[in-house]
Amino acid sequence: MLNEKMLGLGTASSAIRQLFEYGKARKAEIGDDKVYDFSIGNPSVPAPKSVDDTIKNLIENEDSVLLHGYTSAPGDLNVRSKIAAYIQEKSGVEATAANIYMTCGAAASLTITLNALANEGDEVILLAPFFPEYRVFAEKAGFKCVVVNCREPDFQIDINALSSAINKNTKAVIINSPNNPTGVVFSEETVISLAKLLEEKQKEFSKEIFLISDEPYRELVYGNVTVPYPQKYYNNTIVCYSFSKSLSLPGERIGYIYVSPKCKDAGLVFAAVCGAGRALGFVCAPSMLQRVVAENLGNTADVSIYNKNREILYNALSEYGYTAVKPDGAFYLFVKSPEKDAAAFAEKAKKYELLLVPSDSFGMGGYVRISYCVSTSQIENSLPSFKALIEEYK
Amino acid sequence: MLNEKMLGLGTASSAIRQLFEYGKARKAEIGDDKVYDFSIGNPSVPAPKSVDDTIKNLIENEDSVLLHGYTSAPGDLNVRSKIAAYIQEKSGVEATAANIYMTCGAAASLTITLNALANEGDEVILLAPFFPEYRVFAEKAGFKCVVVNCREPDFQIDINALSSAINKNTKAVIINSPNNPTGVVFSEETVISLAKLLEEKQKEFSKEIFLISDEPYRELVYGNVTVPYPQKYYNNTIVCYSFSKSLSLPGERIGYIYVSPKCKDAGLVFAAVCGAGRALGFVCAPSMLQRVVAENLGNTADVSIYNKNREILYNALSEYGYTAVKPDGAFYLFVKSPEKDAAAFAEKAKKYELLLVPSDSFGMGGYVRISYCVSTSQIENSLPSFKALIEEYK
Repeated sequence: MLNEKMLGLGTASSAIRQLFEYGKARKAEIGDDKVYDFSIGNPSVPAPKSVDDTIKNLIENEDSVLLHGYTSAPGDLNVRSKIAAYIQEKSGVEATAANIYMTCGAAASLTITLNALANEGDEVILLAPFFPEYRVFAEKAGFKCVVVNCREPDFQIDINALSSAINKNTKAVIINSPNNPTGVVFSEETVISLAKLLEEKQKEFSKEIFLISDEPYRELVYGNVTVPYPQKYYNNTIVCYSFSKSLSLPGERIGYIYVSPKCKDAGLVFAAVCGAGRALGFVCAPSMLQRVVAENLGNTADVSIYNKNREILYNALSEYGYTAVKPDGAFYLFVKSPEKDAAAFAEKAKKYELLLVPSDSFGMGGYVRISYCVSTSQIENSLPSFKALIEEYK
Repeated sequence: MLNEKMLGLGTASSAIRQLFEYGKARKAEIGDDKVYDFSIGNPSVPAPKSVDDTIKNLIENEDSVLLHGYTSAPGDLNVRSKIAAYIQEKSGVEATAANIYMTCGAAASLTITLNALANEGDEVILLAPFFPEYRVFAEKAGFKCVVVNCREPDFQIDINALSSAINKNTKAVIINSPNNPTGVVFSEETVISLAKLLEEKQKEFSKEIFLISDEPYRELVYGNVTVPYPQKYYNNTIVCYSFSKSLSLPGERIGYIYVSPKCKDAGLVFAAVCGAGRALGFVCAPSMLQRVVAENLGNTADVSIYNKNREILYNALSEYGYTAVKPDGAFYLFVKSPEKDAAAFAEKAKKYELLLVPSDSFGMGGYVRISYCVSTSQIENSLPSFKALIEEYK
């Protein structure tokens, strides 16, 4: 009677969501401050004041019919121009309004892009560990997913493994840097090697292979780390962006797709993006929020709090004997499970009221993800539990 | 290289959009007030002041992380409860939060519902004239579209024609009342006959047939007209709602799906809706706007302006010799073309700077749609052109 796949997706909640729900119930039982919930990647710092100021200013001074009315399907032209100018300035690669399609956030950016590209028999490569919804989005669009593990222990791309996985059916590769769940930023060296490989494979198979760069964490980096712009190194690049994390607006659903003008037939790629947005029912991105983000390019929520959390957590866990790659970005720490079965380890962690997501959800066993977008006090209070947990394995 | 269907949808802009673009160019040429653009169904009256007041209040008094953060995928529980209570009070049919899934507007409501239901070989029935995107949404979801014309001249449902079109593959029927493009409201008699027919057909074919009721114009009715609630008459009803027209917020993308608790396996239908929303990349409806609409249930933009436009336009055109059914709702007038070829008539209208949409776009020949959600002065100034146009046919 119903579509079985959709029913399956609607009934089987994700491991992350299940853990989050367990945490809510457990907090109700023993108290909020007694449960150390590290399950969800929900920004914990407020949006910058400039965001709310922009909203108030628009409400007070802009014509209601214009402010809340339909924009054209790819977005308000002025907004798209401003974003394009910003990207061009930062990346050094040309960008105009004609390359920008405003979306309802990163998930929409990805589903629209994937639906624009997918033909029967096409494959998309996911680099494990990866955000679990990639598989859901790609399969619904009609792709077969092929998983390639990243290199351990630094979680850069394993170029040889990727090379072996690319074949005549490969239509696209999705990268995500800074990465969820590892927090790793792909180095310039990695991106250059990736670009070189994809160019060779394009020649070998006489076809286009698209690099889909999912970048919601671009602005969340620490120290002097910079995130390379893949469009500088590879022509067939499509960037999927969201303001959810940089401006702490995840519920507002606002982002964009940038189709590099250096893509083969970039105008047609953009047209297919428009067609997919239309067929999936997106109409336009939320109109007022389009205006708000255009006025806040380069602004970010206060990421120094995430950095503080990162330092405390990484240093303490290293001292206790845990192994993890120190994250350069995002707000996740990817910790090696002291036993082979990460799910069993995460289950054990619950005894200490620590809610950690086993990495199996991300397409790779043996690790747990810790989301440190929480209060610093939660980090500090949880440390004795982390210590006691690892003692069990000594 | 790209998905050809998506490319086609992205390059071939709709007849409505083409006419709108022609109008913009023409206005630049001869002046805004010289072109009578009746092409687009974009609300022309501002959102009620209470909407902007609610936004300001939320920005000033609500915690930023809560206000702009993710809600659960079906929406904020409190918002869903309020909407459910409102629907129950108005319709007399039970509704709880468990029946409400918040969406990014009517298009999203429809694509999510259609993707939740579609299996290979399934057919959906569209009642012509219909909103052209229905076909785009339904085909992308995997449906075969079957078109049944409404009864002329009153544009109520032709129950006999519908009966002949339903077969073992029929999964759903989409209705839209008040209707775009006719402005007609389906009477209680029509809805009762429809419900009776669908019940008979469910028995005949031993299967569920869903009634998808697309209701963005529910609050836009004139005089003492009431719009029947289909869930009162038929169990397997799914309502697709949007606040775009009632609150003049079309760009903000906010609406909901109501799965009647009387649906067969309503909980599973709701789960399939959740799964489809997830796979299409919707994550959640814009979080602040969810709160805003929940505080504005029952409020509407000032529809008296549309009513005034309707009266002036309908009376004048009738006097000049045009034939149209007087609309009871929405903001469209559906006028019989004085020549068989409505596209040729609309082309002739351009000579008088009148931009009218030929009904072929809506799956039925022989009419033009006039969107009267424009300034009253545009209506008044356009009347001599309408008069001169019909004179050509006398």
